[in-house]
Amino acid sequence: VSASIDLNADLGEGFGPWRMGDDDALLGIVSSANVACGFHAGDPLTMARVCASAAANGVRVGAHVCWRDLEGFGRRDLQVAPDQLHAELVNQIGALVAHARVAGTAVTYVKPHGMLYNRAFADRDTADAIVRAVADVDRSLVVLTQPGSAVLELARAAGLPVAAEGFADRAYLPTGQLMPRSRAGSMLGVDAAVAQAVRLAEDRTVATEDGDLPMDVATICLHGDSPDAVDLARRIRAALEAGGTAIRPFT
Amino acid sequence: VSASIDLNADLGEGFGPWRMGDDDALLGIVSSANVACGFHAGDPLTMARVCASAAANGVRVGAHVCWRDLEGFGRRDLQVAPDQLHAELVNQIGALVAHARVAGTAVTYVKPHGMLYNRAFADRDTADAIVRAVADVDRSLVVLTQPGSAVLELARAAGLPVAAEGFADRAYLPTGQLMPRSRAGSMLGVDAAVAQAVRLAEDRTVATEDGDLPMDVATICLHGDSPDAVDLARRIRAALEAGGTAIRPFT
Amino acid sequence: VSASIDLNADLGEGFGPWRMGDDDALLGIVSSANVACGFHAGDPLTMARVCASAAANGVRVGAHVCWRDLEGFGRRDLQVAPDQLHAELVNQIGALVAHARVAGTAVTYVKPHGMLYNRAFADRDTADAIVRAVADVDRSLVVLTQPGSAVLELARAAGLPVAAEGFADRAYLPTGQLMPRSRAGSMLGVDAAVAQAVRLAEDRTVATEDGDLPMDVATICLHGDSPDAVDLARRIRAALEAGGTAIRPFT
Amino acid sequence: VSASIDLNADLGEGFGPWRMGDDDALLGIVSSANVACGFHAGDPLTMARVCASAAANGVRVGAHVCWRDLEGFGRRDLQVAPDQLHAELVNQIGALVAHARVAGTAVTYVKPHGMLYNRAFADRDTADAIVRAVADVDRSLVVLTQPGSAVLELARAAGLPVAAEGFADRAYLPTGQLMPRSRAGSMLGVDAAVAQAVRLAEDRTVATEDGDLPMDVATICLHGDSPDAVDLARRIRAALEAGGTAIRPFT
Repeated sequence: VSASIDLNADLGEGFGPWRMGDDDALLGIVSSANVACGFHAGDPLTMARVCASAAANGVRVGAHVCWRDLEGFGRRDLQVAPDQLHAELVNQIGALVAHARVAGTAVTYVKPHGMLYNRAFADRDTADAIVRAVADVDRSLVVLTQPGSAVLELARAAGLPVAAEGFADRAYLPTGQLMPRSRAGSMLGVDAAVAQAVRLAEDRTVATEDGDLPMDVATICLHGDSPDAVDLARRIRAALEAGGTAIRPFT
Repeated sequence: VSASIDLNADLGEGFGPWRMGDDDALLGIVSSANVACGFHAGDPLTMARVCASAAANGVRVGAHVCWRDLEGFGRRDLQVAPDQLHAELVNQIGALVAHARVAGTAVTYVKPHGMLYNRAFADRDTADAIVRAVADVDRSLVVLTQPGSAVLELARAAGLPVAAEGFADRAYLPTGQLMPRSRAGSMLGVDAAVAQAVRLAEDRTVATEDGDLPMDVATICLHGDSPDAVDLARRIRAALEAGGTAIRPFT
Repeated sequence: VSASIDLNADLGEGFGPWRMGDDDALLGIVSSANVACGFHAGDPLTMARVCASAAANGVRVGAHVCWRDLEGFGRRDLQVAPDQLHAELVNQIGALVAHARVAGTAVTYVKPHGMLYNRAFADRDTADAIVRAVADVDRSLVVLTQPGSAVLELARAAGLPVAAEGFADRAYLPTGQLMPRSRAGSMLGVDAAVAQAVRLAEDRTVATEDGDLPMDVATICLHGDSPDAVDLARRIRAALEAGGTAIRPFT
Repeated sequence: VSASIDLNADLGEGFGPWRMGDDDALLGIVSSANVACGFHAGDPLTMARVCASAAANGVRVGAHVCWRDLEGFGRRDLQVAPDQLHAELVNQIGALVAHARVAGTAVTYVKPHGMLYNRAFADRDTADAIVRAVADVDRSLVVLTQPGSAVLELARAAGLPVAAEGFADRAYLPTGQLMPRSRAGSMLGVDAAVAQAVRLAEDRTVATEDGDLPMDVATICLHGDSPDAVDLARRIRAALEAGGTAIRPFT
């Protein structure tokens, strides 16, 4: 049987004169682009260009959304009221929908970024604001986040399509959660990361201290913020394809 | 015969903790709301609330767009490249489209704000960027600005619906342009403003130093940034209705 | 014996086109101006103008500092690392020092704003960052905040001059802390607020459910964000002066 | 005889999560650091760190100032009123003065950045706002910009110390102005740039189409925004020292 999986990465994370990561390289590797929408990173011209490049490369476009925190890149916790968060997400999704349309493509999914991604795992008010924003804008948009997250559960309950993602280069706990970065062994080396990506794609499992664990993911998140990261992303794609796994958009 | 005209005003011009103008009062007077989209004023929560109030009041929603300049409120000239301006306008229109949909209404027109409004009168590169942005997002959106503006001409040439607006409280030159604010007599008193609004609505003309001038406007722009301004707006609406002119959205 | 006390208020809380509160009225009432320094509110031109007006009115200038959050006005909790907070405070104090010098006056104290004010009450890392920033810039600056705050304790331990402030219009708990706004009776009416200000100034005590409590404050914080607030501020000053209390800067 | 010259470069041009240029490499090459002050680039933590590194490397600190335009990096013309520009510059200089003091060093000069640098060449209102800001904050600060600039002339007339800078990698016109980048030959190759730096340092002249021209500069501006730029900067310093020119701060 031939497996297939999606590869996603964060793109368009510059702002004004500043760039982050190698968008061009990643657009040749991934099948889904998480596009920053101006609140934690990104600006309109960058959003327009990433949408155009994604369309040209056959890469799907997703809205990578957060609260407003350019200086902290959305990695700092911020006490945003649910109604404000809802409005900020509606704003970002709507803006990217317009840029995608101009580029001849469409937004197909929404992924929370940074600390919002983390907070949506267990904080149901935050998760609910995300789900309401997606549902209010377009009920066909897929909600993408980590397995077990409250936002996935609430999205599913609201009748929205959902998808979970795995990480190639992070170790998993027996609970299915990511091992905290502070623990030794939390970051996998190149070979282990490639192997984990292949396992995720071919078997939908990950190895943990207590044995293998099912990990039903539709896509694997890759990084591109350093030459090494881009090289790893290329090796993962090559290993997947060598094993007969097709790289296909999950949306 | 019964005349009808639209009344429009700038709304949602606060940001974060700050308010500007009396949105609630104006929503009971006008038929079209020019909603600030976060670049010269406005924030997502404010945009959402104004859309909801407009929908509840039967007031049409338009995107009031500019380049990014919160500190200068879009009143300062800024050297924005056409492609960047295009992307910034796509962003703003797209965001408001989403907020309007959430509120159960829709964006029906786009109006440039402040110095962009002024610059689009004669600068064809600027006017072209505006027209392309509107056309790229939704060709049914009406372009609203002052009569004689390059942006109206280019929008019409591009096949977009257009509409012109007049001012009740500003004197006009025999050329049809607004008398510069620096000239004595450029700002009309309350009675003269009411009279000019009635003339605009009933005859589509304005008085100038050299006699009456046709002024084919679909809507009159009112202000609400002071108690006096709101009072004038109320008196204009009352005088129009007393004369048999219906206040109806131009879109 | 003749008592004296300082009156302080938040000034310069506009940004760009937006204003908040009635700075002109307050400058005729208070003896110390807490000037917003551009991070939660304020911009350079506003800072310059408030310094000039304060100098002209014989009002002392203090730096009203926070982390960067214009949209939330510094009222939202934000996870700022201590070193970043330290640098942000150094920046704000330094900028206001320059504006004050240009205006012919000087910054004499520093007061944390909003959620930073609250967080510095018990969070010692936050309090320490504030104290280090003040000490690093100018050890003669007075740290102003509420009685019992960790920031006062750490500032005193570091050898910095400190001062505590009271509130006229807020009820106090028997512990000396402010009654939470959510509780009935937490906000005093006009007469009670005037009486509490007089008690604070003449006796350095406040009334609580369990009886009178010593409250050793050098200054009373007044508000000016509404006509009623300005009116209350005027009445408090008048009542203090009528009772023989002189209004004098605490620095 | 032994010549000496200063080398300066723009540092601290990141913002939040974004970096620009190789600050660490440049701090080992230059004798003066133009530190971005948060308006076109830079944030408080970056300013603090650059000041500390400069102090540790014996590099002088200058305020690299502009109007507020992070998105455009200060390279776009913006219609800022002179009083607002004055206040914005006072703010930036004051903030950097505080950071420098905390780092155990001091700001010794001010250099306009980007489009402000260009506009101050001929626009006397702009030049005057810069000169007034520097004079108002600290009359011992040196004003650094290009030879022939209005800002140098007005600064000298106001009694401020001034200094001019040259460029190693740009061709000069016979008028002494930089050849516009749009002209062929405006950017010098590596060898020509090294040679021009040596000429500037040893003879205070540059070669032009019409022969040699005196160019009385106190410092040469180097770039560090690419590996090639850093390599050129290193070669220039090495060539100067090999020729017996000492690299010494101009302040």
